[in-house]
Amino acid sequence: MPKLYVALTHYPVVSKRGDIITSAVTNLDLHDISRAVKTYGAKSFYVVTPLVDQKTLVQKIISHWTEGSGAVANPARRSALEMIKIKNSIEDVAEDIESIEKVYPKTVVTSARRHPCAIDYYEFRDLLMTEIPHLLVFGTAWGLPDSFVSQADYVLEPVTGAGDYNHLSVRSAAAVILDRLLGQRF
Amino acid sequence: MPKLYVALTHYPVVSKRGDIITSAVTNLDLHDISRAVKTYGAKSFYVVTPLVDQKTLVQKIISHWTEGSGAVANPARRSALEMIKIKNSIEDVAEDIESIEKVYPKTVVTSARRHPCAIDYYEFRDLLMTEIPHLLVFGTAWGLPDSFVSQADYVLEPVTGAGDYNHLSVRSAAAVILDRLLGQRF
Repeated sequence: MPKLYVALTHYPVVSKRGDIITSAVTNLDLHDISRAVKTYGAKSFYVVTPLVDQKTLVQKIISHWTEGSGAVANPARRSALEMIKIKNSIEDVAEDIESIEKVYPKTVVTSARRHPCAIDYYEFRDLLMTEIPHLLVFGTAWGLPDSFVSQADYVLEPVTGAGDYNHLSVRSAAAVILDRLLGQRF
Repeated sequence: MPKLYVALTHYPVVSKRGDIITSAVTNLDLHDISRAVKTYGAKSFYVVTPLVDQKTLVQKIISHWTEGSGAVANPARRSALEMIKIKNSIEDVAEDIESIEKVYPKTVVTSARRHPCAIDYYEFRDLLMTEIPHLLVFGTAWGLPDSFVSQADYVLEPVTGAGDYNHLSVRSAAAVILDRLLGQRF
């Protein structure tokens, strides 16, 4: 089984103006990405934010579906949302994975822009055939800052469609990328 | 260029209990699926509901991003949301496509369940190489009723992941299916 972990980070990310900001959590990001993580058999879904009130909000949403009335009403939703772990930073995520796997993970960042050394989906699928854990990081807002991207082990090539327009939501991009990495090839 | 049209229908769909209902429109369905339709070069994105107040709501959301302050703030969002057309029924959608293409489209329905005569992604990609327009229909809520599925020209095989769990959101499923049909193969 591939040792792929997924993180969605709200800090550091880039604003529309290019500033580094902390973005707010979007409820449907939690639902859609946890369901994709569960569907494709990734190991965990980390939601990263340093803000205490945002962490409380995420915990409240998870609890509703895993312990509250939502858990009874919709068991499929429960088994997705219980994949979520809340962390302060990507460093904390990597340490959590290290404590599970006994190996520090390689980080792979996603970007809507092309990078000269980006790996493609074939290469990433090959990396996932090894025993090394990999952490795939998605940014919210206008994406991950260059300073963050340059520190990652790998940059994944962007999802491209038919032309120049590639403005998928982070929810859609996460689903497509998990399908390309872990879905059945046809 | 493939003649693929996409529709998201809110009636007829199945409730959790199995009844045929009209579901409410979800704002992020409009955003995410129109962005995926634009990214992958599908022709139009039809939002189908017979309810007058729901049609008004959809039109209000579209106008905000195509004519209002949202159009100035976010041109990429505008060019996605202007792909949306609102229709009463799938029959109205098919007639609209016929008026554009001068050929009545073949309908392809999506389902999270396996059907004995389902076509796979290879077969659908081959169909899209022809001149015939195809309408790909997604259902909201718990999906499209059997009576609707049985009237379609084709049923597309479900998106499967690593195991038995396949509870993607309709937003995620639409993105993955468009990537499989129109994305660059790797």
